[in-house]
Amino acid sequence: MISLQSYPSMTDYLKSGLYKWAGDARSFDKEGPYIELVTSPNNPDGFVRHSMVNRTGGILVHDLAYYWPQYTPISSATDHDLTLFTVSKSTGHAGTRIGWALVKDPEVAKKMIKFIELSTIGVSRDSQLRAARILEVIINSSQNPGRPESGESFFKISHHLMAERWQLLREAVNRGRFFSLPEFQQGFCQFLNQVSQPQPAFAWLKCEDESVEDCESLLRDHKILTRGGRSFGVGPKYIRVSMLDRDHNFNLFLKRLASIQT
Amino acid sequence: MISLQSYPSMTDYLKSGLYKWAGDARSFDKEGPYIELVTSPNNPDGFVRHSMVNRTGGILVHDLAYYWPQYTPISSATDHDLTLFTVSKSTGHAGTRIGWALVKDPEVAKKMIKFIELSTIGVSRDSQLRAARILEVIINSSQNPGRPESGESFFKISHHLMAERWQLLREAVNRGRFFSLPEFQQGFCQFLNQVSQPQPAFAWLKCEDESVEDCESLLRDHKILTRGGRSFGVGPKYIRVSMLDRDHNFNLFLKRLASIQT
Repeated sequence: MISLQSYPSMTDYLKSGLYKWAGDARSFDKEGPYIELVTSPNNPDGFVRHSMVNRTGGILVHDLAYYWPQYTPISSATDHDLTLFTVSKSTGHAGTRIGWALVKDPEVAKKMIKFIELSTIGVSRDSQLRAARILEVIINSSQNPGRPESGESFFKISHHLMAERWQLLREAVNRGRFFSLPEFQQGFCQFLNQVSQPQPAFAWLKCEDESVEDCESLLRDHKILTRGGRSFGVGPKYIRVSMLDRDHNFNLFLKRLASIQT
Repeated sequence: MISLQSYPSMTDYLKSGLYKWAGDARSFDKEGPYIELVTSPNNPDGFVRHSMVNRTGGILVHDLAYYWPQYTPISSATDHDLTLFTVSKSTGHAGTRIGWALVKDPEVAKKMIKFIELSTIGVSRDSQLRAARILEVIINSSQNPGRPESGESFFKISHHLMAERWQLLREAVNRGRFFSLPEFQQGFCQFLNQVSQPQPAFAWLKCEDESVEDCESLLRDHKILTRGGRSFGVGPKYIRVSMLDRDHNFNLFLKRLASIQT
């Protein structure tokens, strides 16, 4: 599966004759057929996104890699023409390289299957078997939580962990005026049946301090490896930090972040 | 990994701007840079192949998917600029979708890695782990055959099995004049340290009977599913049959083949 910043580089590097990268959907104004990629919640900032191209004749592809209850309120069932998912962000099994698509038009689905067949001659069977087992386990844990064989609900545990981490990060950031974080609106999560906050897989930090020009470099000096805003088409005041690292690394990150502000 | 007949369809379907399919190397006479794919032993006919384009300025890619001692005498160590291998044909783990390349030029190797990274964002970890284990087991069985922990030599067992099957097939074919098979020259196998016959993974059968126009259809009527010559750029008198099916199916194939000739 593909994350937002991968789409342009893939398209440019592979020089496909089937499509070309046309840039940001907000400023797209070309004639003719088009494909719009809607990544929601968006990577890197975590905001819910909707189609931006204000005309007809296009094909919409919704990349819902991060539309899972531990990251964002599941406000409604998805009902798009073509929706992409991945085990990578739902359970963290990125190395398994398995995604799936919900596709309304059978002809489009057939073309997608043909494309996979020709470009990779099929997806790794080992990965398919592993992904099927992973999904079975998390479905069991959600449908029958607490039973000895199914354990606690995977999504409740993950939601709790993300909530805890985001609270710690916001506390650390709010102790100074050096950084700021996106402010999200809470929403009702139909899956968890409760009001919940967006708590994205990435923190999209902004350096508010005027003396700092390159936030990525500053953090690297403090042994925090991030991805700078320029990779995402914005300025070097922004950086993206993973919220999914192991506990030990996440706690180190908080400590080092705090040391910058003192 | 890719078999011979997959190269053209992949190239045409994906409409890559990086390269175009230029047809059979034997009749290639265009100016400018080119890439020649050498598939040896060749699929479907099993013959050893060498570069055919008689000029300089090209890049050679050797696809040695079938260059394993159970299929063909290993006449020498390979020493090409860029050589492709796969576990698919060496051990039968096609579903694992793992191949590897030996590349002399570090810059070319870097580009190949970059291409894999961008086009698939990395290869399934599950498949990599499984393939590493498979290769470890067959290397152990070859280097320490007969030890309790390593078992019999995988390649010796496979070579023996293929020899047996080819003998049975040749006997069946030679009982009539309906079919013919390629005739191979024997060679010295440096790996098995013995003279051995080519015994390819596919049998490339020709219908010699003049009344038969479409060999694939005839065999289908006798419940033998094959791939006709037209898929490989030759006439419908030829068909390709797998020699790697399970014992039960292979024996059924021989029986049904015999029934055509009586």
